[in-house]
Amino acid sequence: VNNFAERKLYLSVQINQKSPIGVFDSGLGGLTAVRELKRILPGEDIIYFGDTGRVPYGTRSPEIITKYALDDMNFLTSFGVKAVLCACGTVSSIAIEVLRKNFDMPVIGVVESAARKACKKTKNGKVALLATPATVKNRAYERECAKLRSDVSVIGIGCPMFVPLVENGYIKNDCTVTKLIADEYLSKLKEFSPDVIILGCTHYPLIRNIIEQRARELFGDVHIVDSGAQAAKAVKSFLDENDLTNLNTSKKTAKFYVSDETHNFVSSASLFLGEEISGVEKIDISKFCYNKTL
Amino acid sequence: VNNFAERKLYLSVQINQKSPIGVFDSGLGGLTAVRELKRILPGEDIIYFGDTGRVPYGTRSPEIITKYALDDMNFLTSFGVKAVLCACGTVSSIAIEVLRKNFDMPVIGVVESAARKACKKTKNGKVALLATPATVKNRAYERECAKLRSDVSVIGIGCPMFVPLVENGYIKNDCTVTKLIADEYLSKLKEFSPDVIILGCTHYPLIRNIIEQRARELFGDVHIVDSGAQAAKAVKSFLDENDLTNLNTSKKTAKFYVSDETHNFVSSASLFLGEEISGVEKIDISKFCYNKTL
Repeated sequence: VNNFAERKLYLSVQINQKSPIGVFDSGLGGLTAVRELKRILPGEDIIYFGDTGRVPYGTRSPEIITKYALDDMNFLTSFGVKAVLCACGTVSSIAIEVLRKNFDMPVIGVVESAARKACKKTKNGKVALLATPATVKNRAYERECAKLRSDVSVIGIGCPMFVPLVENGYIKNDCTVTKLIADEYLSKLKEFSPDVIILGCTHYPLIRNIIEQRARELFGDVHIVDSGAQAAKAVKSFLDENDLTNLNTSKKTAKFYVSDETHNFVSSASLFLGEEISGVEKIDISKFCYNKTL
Repeated sequence: VNNFAERKLYLSVQINQKSPIGVFDSGLGGLTAVRELKRILPGEDIIYFGDTGRVPYGTRSPEIITKYALDDMNFLTSFGVKAVLCACGTVSSIAIEVLRKNFDMPVIGVVESAARKACKKTKNGKVALLATPATVKNRAYERECAKLRSDVSVIGIGCPMFVPLVENGYIKNDCTVTKLIADEYLSKLKEFSPDVIILGCTHYPLIRNIIEQRARELFGDVHIVDSGAQAAKAVKSFLDENDLTNLNTSKKTAKFYVSDETHNFVSSASLFLGEEISGVEKIDISKFCYNKTL
């Protein structure tokens, strides 16, 4: 069973329009994608996993990131999900093909759809990527854009301080520290002068205003691509095309699992989700250790 | 075999003056303690483990921290070490007794010795602790100080931004961002006005100058206690008292193990260690998973 159409037939008993969508991230960031999912797909049940016991992923090696991502998928697929949104920019850049191969399951990452949008929007052919060091190093956005438009160049800037700043609440529009750090990162793009900036990590939408304002000062009119929201749109397209969208919007549930105490997650989650969170449960991810890597 | 004197007799074949000292931390920070160990105990071989695949510990729950620390001890004790310096402030606060109980091994943490020093140095009885949120929440320093002097009060300030700032190189004395963050944390102590400040995380010595300068501006004459260096001194006392110090200082080795790629560790390690690092090797910590918790 190699392609999804065949697989859907094969698994038709288990997977149908009523099956939930799975979403995972290293921690909280993916909730910005869930927010968009809930907005554009109001009929879907959602199962979220945030690997808070092993966050962050973006500063780790590809090998460790892939191992963690396989465990995360192993957990999510146990719910019979009809598709998985990989809301982690780092995993989407590094391990998405490994996930698809190992789980024979539609896995929508944040890279492809954001690269498509960036290529559509850029006029001067200069696209900047703000992301974790691991994502930048991997150059997945560069490869994706090259497939779509040969005249587009991508420069990635590793922004390792953005995740701790967001997770510790330095997100107000007038926050001096975040403005200084954003300035430091964006200044590296001064000569390049992009007209599209991809937010390649699902934490960054929380400081979008700060990034956008400083980018406009430096580069003039700039279009911001939110990779998580873009991926949510790609999930909708996929479900619509495969006749898997749940059109019944009554009594929808979103269930959230984390690998460390729920307390820290709950206290920050509403910022990312845009509404109060409930139904958060702790699981032991080491029990979902995935061993047979293809 | 309950106390260490008996145990030393019992294990005399394996453990002697020539046995190495084990040191572990969640990542790089513990190298500031190794630096002090090498200075005051030049005859010792050292085995270091930095859990870079699961760093940071300080923002996680006590349960996860304890699990990780047990794995770390399990790995280190496989080398037949004569003592373990737990250079992680978070583990020292939360899990030190569990480690001692499970491994029947001298484990020297950073809390007891730093609390002793603080109680010795304070004149106004006001001791401030700068540490990770988990360490502050646990109140181990408060309990230790209360054992020693009833007239000493301890206020802990969680400093979650210091580790990412240090790990990303924001350590120069004139670094505006680190100065702003240090100011934010220290300002919380304005009314308390401590005369001793404990650096309760082994990352913090790298920004000691920034912390010290701002503290002097706010509180006047302040004594800084470096908890990692203090723990190294406690290891020396322990070895001397138990006739376990290696007096032969020729051809000493220090071997470093990490749980993620060696590259990131090596590139920052010299800052912490104060000299170039070599002999760094990656291990799979999940193979040292410790299951039988007492």
